[in-house]
Amino acid sequence: MTDTLAHPRARAGGRSARRILRSTRDITMLPGLERALPLCEVMDGSEVARIDAASMDILENVGVVFRDPIALDDWRKAGAKVSGETVYPDRGLVRDLIATIPETFTYHARNPGNNVQLGGRHSVFVPMTGAPYLRDLDDVRRNPTLDDLAMFHKLSHMLPAMHSTAHHIVEPYDHPISHRHLRITYSSMKHSDKMFMGMTTSPRNAEDVIEMCAILFGEDFIETHPVTTGNCNGNSPLVWDETMLGAMRAFCRGNQPVLCSPFVLGGANTPASVPASVAQLNAEALSALAYTQIIRRGCPAIYGHYLSTVSMKSGAPMAGTPEISLMNFMIGQMARYYGVPWRTSNTLGGAKTFDAQAGYESATTLSSVLHAGANYIWHSAGWNEAGMHCSVAKFVVDAEQCAMAYRMAEGPKWHDFDEALSAVRDIGPGGHYLGHPHTQDNFQTAFFMPELFDNNSIEQWIAEGSKEITQRALEHAHALLAAYEEPTLDEARNEALLDYIARREREIPAADALNQEY
Amino acid sequence: MTDTLAHPRARAGGRSARRILRSTRDITMLPGLERALPLCEVMDGSEVARIDAASMDILENVGVVFRDPIALDDWRKAGAKVSGETVYPDRGLVRDLIATIPETFTYHARNPGNNVQLGGRHSVFVPMTGAPYLRDLDDVRRNPTLDDLAMFHKLSHMLPAMHSTAHHIVEPYDHPISHRHLRITYSSMKHSDKMFMGMTTSPRNAEDVIEMCAILFGEDFIETHPVTTGNCNGNSPLVWDETMLGAMRAFCRGNQPVLCSPFVLGGANTPASVPASVAQLNAEALSALAYTQIIRRGCPAIYGHYLSTVSMKSGAPMAGTPEISLMNFMIGQMARYYGVPWRTSNTLGGAKTFDAQAGYESATTLSSVLHAGANYIWHSAGWNEAGMHCSVAKFVVDAEQCAMAYRMAEGPKWHDFDEALSAVRDIGPGGHYLGHPHTQDNFQTAFFMPELFDNNSIEQWIAEGSKEITQRALEHAHALLAAYEEPTLDEARNEALLDYIARREREIPAADALNQEY
Repeated sequence: MTDTLAHPRARAGGRSARRILRSTRDITMLPGLERALPLCEVMDGSEVARIDAASMDILENVGVVFRDPIALDDWRKAGAKVSGETVYPDRGLVRDLIATIPETFTYHARNPGNNVQLGGRHSVFVPMTGAPYLRDLDDVRRNPTLDDLAMFHKLSHMLPAMHSTAHHIVEPYDHPISHRHLRITYSSMKHSDKMFMGMTTSPRNAEDVIEMCAILFGEDFIETHPVTTGNCNGNSPLVWDETMLGAMRAFCRGNQPVLCSPFVLGGANTPASVPASVAQLNAEALSALAYTQIIRRGCPAIYGHYLSTVSMKSGAPMAGTPEISLMNFMIGQMARYYGVPWRTSNTLGGAKTFDAQAGYESATTLSSVLHAGANYIWHSAGWNEAGMHCSVAKFVVDAEQCAMAYRMAEGPKWHDFDEALSAVRDIGPGGHYLGHPHTQDNFQTAFFMPELFDNNSIEQWIAEGSKEITQRALEHAHALLAAYEEPTLDEARNEALLDYIARREREIPAADALNQEY
Repeated sequence: MTDTLAHPRARAGGRSARRILRSTRDITMLPGLERALPLCEVMDGSEVARIDAASMDILENVGVVFRDPIALDDWRKAGAKVSGETVYPDRGLVRDLIATIPETFTYHARNPGNNVQLGGRHSVFVPMTGAPYLRDLDDVRRNPTLDDLAMFHKLSHMLPAMHSTAHHIVEPYDHPISHRHLRITYSSMKHSDKMFMGMTTSPRNAEDVIEMCAILFGEDFIETHPVTTGNCNGNSPLVWDETMLGAMRAFCRGNQPVLCSPFVLGGANTPASVPASVAQLNAEALSALAYTQIIRRGCPAIYGHYLSTVSMKSGAPMAGTPEISLMNFMIGQMARYYGVPWRTSNTLGGAKTFDAQAGYESATTLSSVLHAGANYIWHSAGWNEAGMHCSVAKFVVDAEQCAMAYRMAEGPKWHDFDEALSAVRDIGPGGHYLGHPHTQDNFQTAFFMPELFDNNSIEQWIAEGSKEITQRALEHAHALLAAYEEPTLDEARNEALLDYIARREREIPAADALNQEY
């Protein structure tokens, strides 16, 4: 079925392509995942307590630098010991503050059918973001434009396992950097009716995002309903900077959750020890989570991190390594111990092309984060070259992998067990099941059939052009895009968003204009 | 370090290559893995009981065909109801028989330093076998020769995570099919001092293997020590044939374990239901496991399977799908319920080249079988194209992936936790750890650094020739082979093995001579 769609003619797109696609592929978003897999918990209770005690000890005695006068003042008022830029929050205060973070909450999309739960057993897949390059529909590596970003937002919209369009999947280099957050946010909002992320590149940019959310959803609505997510990276070890903290305040004041994400390069900015790296990361995450509750008590917030180990050869981040899996298992336990939803990263990897390295790295990470029980599973599609590029081919394959992992995480289905056993009695030794009514009724739902894996004989594969997965995936992406239909956006709100952007672009100097790299 | 070795000059091989390799790479086999990860158990006790009851019901009421008069007679004598070729063993008899299968045992290698435990928490990685084609050291797909097989045995010997050289990793087409089992067994024995597998292509061939083991280890020794493994595939649904049963008898009489392996193409020869497929497979495995104990009470035996789901498009086997992971989780639970060591397959997949599909398939399966708690992890290196070819490049990458999974499965290491925490106090906020004594002492053991993943910048990667993983892996294989040193084989035993082969080759007609495909 895909083969028809993937035919070059389909690139011409338009009505007929859409008709074929609609008749053969369901692009309906999968509901937010409710995991049924047992959790991979590598620590017993005493080890969890050991990490907790070590982290609290770090907070109380080593302290965390908040390079931001407002935050330091906030901490002082909250009762923490502050010395210079270093905050030494005691464990009682930290526990008290994080206690008001909701364990689960609902994300609202502009299409309520695309709302998703987060926290506890509820997980979502979110595409990668932040790539300064893309490998495009012809697998050419280059700087991206706003059109390229729109393309990724359209793909995110059409790929069932993606629960979000995220934000700057790729950096739109054809727009002034100071205006970019407006165009990125609008692109996320316009090309899909799934949830999206909000830029945190400066406190004021974050305020723009919240304003635009207020336009899209209504000011009162977002006061009480999470509709977007900001990411705030820490500078490990134990530093939070002014940009991130200012953006955090904009989001939390607007009652919108942020990912409190220490940025770990294991061995470089953490100790050369898995449990000690987790203890440090945990202290960092707790300090930011606690601060969200100083900003606004009860605001949703998400325990986050970026996690890699570094190569001793080059200092480059590595992915898919055993320690990253182990740290994921442990961090998941810590987040659950504190009762806070947990964000991790999915398909990280350092391959320069979409080769087997990329496949191993991504699948290893995907599997680990599912077993670890992650909630907000970011960077779930497209990531390659240590995040330096987003690959169109990898994007669609990763998304199918997420759909497969989703199915696995739901656990086995027992509803037709007795009926299926009666097929065993019907068929008996030496028979086959393909013609049995139970098989015919249940085959498609019983066994996932990946579209982007080729399982044909080599003879058939050669007859079809000896296409490796990169080529098949790019044809798939072409076919999807040819069939894309924009979800209707209320005209008045669309106008208001455009007005807002126009006004803000007049106000914001575009002096730094286009990025030099473009 | 690898880069030096991977240089084309290293292909010339010889003493200097060996010297470089020895000084930079440890080829010592990793001890048999003792897993510390929690098991992914997707069934509760009542669901395990439901599968058990369904399987016993299949055995008692649908029955299992044993296409072999000796086996039918054996079953009759053991007290089972037999009608025609169908055996209907009741659950009491089955439970009684399998109760004497050892839960764990030790495999003995000709180098006692390479002995490994199997069962319980003990696992081993074994390379793929049975490929009619290879992708060779130049990535050319062709029929293999005995030299190619020797090459894979040498690589298995040198790759630390491989615990076995297996047997016919590739089919040596340059030898008459009727003589091949002798040459294959000798190649496994000669090129490595790790454990190996034994051919089960006919009952008489299996007897030859056992005779050769008796020569290598001593007749008395193998009477009480497992030294090799045979694989006996079932024909699902519910049939065991004469070849496999005869080979099984040769192994079990010699006290050597066999893998009792139903051959499942989910949806084609099992019902279109995950739990019902497991119930049928479990019945099949139990019937063969029980028969091993009729042959020789107390003989070690291994619960096995080959497991795929079939593509509705082509009927081809698929791998890395969610249902395969789920079935692995469930089958692992059943094997543990019966207290029998469990074999599964590792890097199955249908990719035609070593592309990203192969990476995803292999990593998904590897991760799942570790979480599932598999013991005898077969097909752990080289498998591609649904087993139609063994890829040299994939072989070495898979083996490194197994080493990484091994590390993950060992769980986090806490031995230096307090020391590493004192580094956090030393470094404080905003510092870095690379120069800290704890980092320098522990970096290499704390974080796995894959040799075959490239994590350099794209600029450096281009400067080094823009090599995708296939090319890097082939260079790695060349370097390994250039540095290969054959482990000494006792001269008298070697002579005796060669005499045995010469005698048997005179006795066995080579009429069917070379395989037509060659």
